[in-house]
Amino acid sequence: MANKPSIPKGTRDFSPEEMLRREFIFDAIKSVFKLYGYQPIETPAIENLSTLLGKYGEEGDRLIFKILNSGNFLSDVDSDDLIARNTAKLSGLICEKGLRYDLTVPFARYVVQHRDKILFPFRRYQIQPVWRADRPQKGRYREFFQCDVDVIGSDSLLNEYELVRIIDEIFAKLKINVVTKINNRKLLAGIAEYIGEENRIIDITIAIDKLEKIGADAVNKELIEKGVSSKAVAKLQPLLKLEGSTAFKFEKLAELLSHSITGMKGIAELRELFSYFDTGLLKASPELDLTLARGLNYYTGTIIEVKAADVNIGSICGGGRYDNLTGVFGLAGISGVGISFGADRIYDVMSHLDLFDSRETSLSKVLVLNFGNSAFEYAFKILSLLRSLDIRSEFYPDPVKIKKQITYANGRKIPYVLMAGDDEIKADIVTVRNMTSGQQQKVPFGNLKEYLILEISKDSL
Amino acid sequence: MANKPSIPKGTRDFSPEEMLRREFIFDAIKSVFKLYGYQPIETPAIENLSTLLGKYGEEGDRLIFKILNSGNFLSDVDSDDLIARNTAKLSGLICEKGLRYDLTVPFARYVVQHRDKILFPFRRYQIQPVWRADRPQKGRYREFFQCDVDVIGSDSLLNEYELVRIIDEIFAKLKINVVTKINNRKLLAGIAEYIGEENRIIDITIAIDKLEKIGADAVNKELIEKGVSSKAVAKLQPLLKLEGSTAFKFEKLAELLSHSITGMKGIAELRELFSYFDTGLLKASPELDLTLARGLNYYTGTIIEVKAADVNIGSICGGGRYDNLTGVFGLAGISGVGISFGADRIYDVMSHLDLFDSRETSLSKVLVLNFGNSAFEYAFKILSLLRSLDIRSEFYPDPVKIKKQITYANGRKIPYVLMAGDDEIKADIVTVRNMTSGQQQKVPFGNLKEYLILEISKDSL
Repeated sequence: MANKPSIPKGTRDFSPEEMLRREFIFDAIKSVFKLYGYQPIETPAIENLSTLLGKYGEEGDRLIFKILNSGNFLSDVDSDDLIARNTAKLSGLICEKGLRYDLTVPFARYVVQHRDKILFPFRRYQIQPVWRADRPQKGRYREFFQCDVDVIGSDSLLNEYELVRIIDEIFAKLKINVVTKINNRKLLAGIAEYIGEENRIIDITIAIDKLEKIGADAVNKELIEKGVSSKAVAKLQPLLKLEGSTAFKFEKLAELLSHSITGMKGIAELRELFSYFDTGLLKASPELDLTLARGLNYYTGTIIEVKAADVNIGSICGGGRYDNLTGVFGLAGISGVGISFGADRIYDVMSHLDLFDSRETSLSKVLVLNFGNSAFEYAFKILSLLRSLDIRSEFYPDPVKIKKQITYANGRKIPYVLMAGDDEIKADIVTVRNMTSGQQQKVPFGNLKEYLILEISKDSL
Repeated sequence: MANKPSIPKGTRDFSPEEMLRREFIFDAIKSVFKLYGYQPIETPAIENLSTLLGKYGEEGDRLIFKILNSGNFLSDVDSDDLIARNTAKLSGLICEKGLRYDLTVPFARYVVQHRDKILFPFRRYQIQPVWRADRPQKGRYREFFQCDVDVIGSDSLLNEYELVRIIDEIFAKLKINVVTKINNRKLLAGIAEYIGEENRIIDITIAIDKLEKIGADAVNKELIEKGVSSKAVAKLQPLLKLEGSTAFKFEKLAELLSHSITGMKGIAELRELFSYFDTGLLKASPELDLTLARGLNYYTGTIIEVKAADVNIGSICGGGRYDNLTGVFGLAGISGVGISFGADRIYDVMSHLDLFDSRETSLSKVLVLNFGNSAFEYAFKILSLLRSLDIRSEFYPDPVKIKKQITYANGRKIPYVLMAGDDEIKADIVTVRNMTSGQQQKVPFGNLKEYLILEISKDSL
């Protein structure tokens, strides 16, 4: 095999440096999820296609990776089907399973499947990769990680409030300045009613969702193309451009939508949620954004979207309330709300803003040099001591030239090197080199423990 | 959809309780890997089939999950191929990618692909799921986790020694008593030479590997069936039954195998490795086991296997040295050694021996009860205080009957409940109930921080 091996387009290897940074992000997210009482679950990477198909729209169905049945995968396929080359039909005959496309549908499946064992309200988080047969491009991968946090079995808007607090706390922890925008699907439904197009709520939502990206003219054009009357489009404009304080907007909307029960419900929900924000415990206040729609059709109440304030990269977190996610699996009438953090985009934002701690480039604190056979036993003792103190340490495995071993320590950015050759062993001491300052110090073995605690383990693990 | 949804056979959902226990295992393993200077990497779940196929033998190739190409997957298939229904050939035409089967081959691929950026000796660990289209049965899954730790680019037996120390430390941490067995493939090759069957080393290895499982008679029968002469089988017996101290065995073997260069090399390697064990720093001493063979063909030196002493469940960790794993990807002459911990079996052993800490059943330390709208602002303040102290806390989202909220706390095994209704708010106090003792205490809000630090955060996180 002469060619260098490679990995499929849109997938990635993660090097140790990248892993440390990714773990930093996942740990920050996870610790806040736990702090707010959310519990971890995991679901298999492989789901039955019957679970996945029909949940993400036509486009989504096409993007699901399908797994070929094992053994004789053609046993249920007759020759007519083969010759007809109807790949859509055939794939259903030769594949029963597919790769997880998101964490929301598997969560709904999980809740229904295990409902007898679940205590509601059920707060769960889930951090796992998902796969989409999308065209790979910058920042879009075929395998990427989602960090989802949802509470199911409670209507209370306090859940939305706590999720916004989670957003606030996680991004403060990661030192990313964010703008959090809030809207409500019932309000959007009310607006559709108000402009006389309540049956086109989905088209209107999809079009409005693009406002920031493509501008008002293009959105209006799209609405007209979808069959929304020009009178309705005209009536929509002042709403999308509504200016003023949040309180003023609520007042104005309540006036305009007073005949829409759904719209007024949306306004009431938003008012309640914003009253929680007003208690002043958030580091950054969310904004009401009437043009926020979010594409997914299963949202029915609050919708939330978070963007980085200092990098233009799209949303890094988003979600909303859904009233019937489990209905499709046979359990109706359970409301939930959740958000998802995009770990890969958060990584990109932090790289761009140089927010990673540069000290975290090497895990190992100490390299113990290898002075050959006669020095092993002494080196073993030093290593045992280091590790009993929880100081991450490596032993250079081969008795090569000391210069080469030092070069390795430098290349790995290991901050301390411990040396014990014949002279040190005879004197029962250890030579410690600080790789940053270049200074060396001889420490009696009897004082080594104290020295290590004071000098090395103090500046972290 | 009337049927309860389900997941594919051989896959699993993990509930919060299972997740906490699994995380405990993964954290213990990871922390020791890091303590010994190993660095994390991750590789994609999806690899090119050209990377995976031909690496695991015929049986392995059959067990790789293949992913159907997206779009028109029949475009490269002509009608003759379709009608011939040669599924082996067809699967190669309609699938380019497959799911990771283990972590060793992706690691070899990673090393070759990124060799310019890797500093050798390269110590890496990798903890990820793998997938095999095996027949599911008790303790055998189609999706399961491997925890691999390997060092590549060093011949030194100190690497083997450090891996055995890692085994020692991890199982001590998990409180599992283990028996670690050691052998060397060169010694096995020497034995094959000695009995005059050096060309049948693979057959002999595979047969010997089953000794413990099927007994000597069945092994001998298998050897004869594979064409090993009965004279050779007879010559093998005393070696397999060699009794005495490790030193005595080495002496005896050196006598018998004195004409086999490979055999003598194996003995020398084992002697060196056991001399490291003799420095007395291990909690449990490994045993030399001449019948240990381990199936995989790529091993060329030391082989290692770990079993639980108190549960009969097969090996829970194993590995060995390989001299040419990266050769198949075009990078020859790099030696490595590694071991793999079976997280799923370790979980089963710990469950069986009741080794999980029962306190770890709920993540949340505190439930703050919901006394309705007028009490929210006060509750928010309490929650902020709790979380600023890193005390994992939940707010009950719905203002339902207090009894129902307490029942929830009980069901979730949350140890403390904090209550602040109108009376408490007026008096600026909080009622704290210890759910274990049932005792309640009124704490002034001004003293709450100190109280929480003393009473609640002390016993963990």
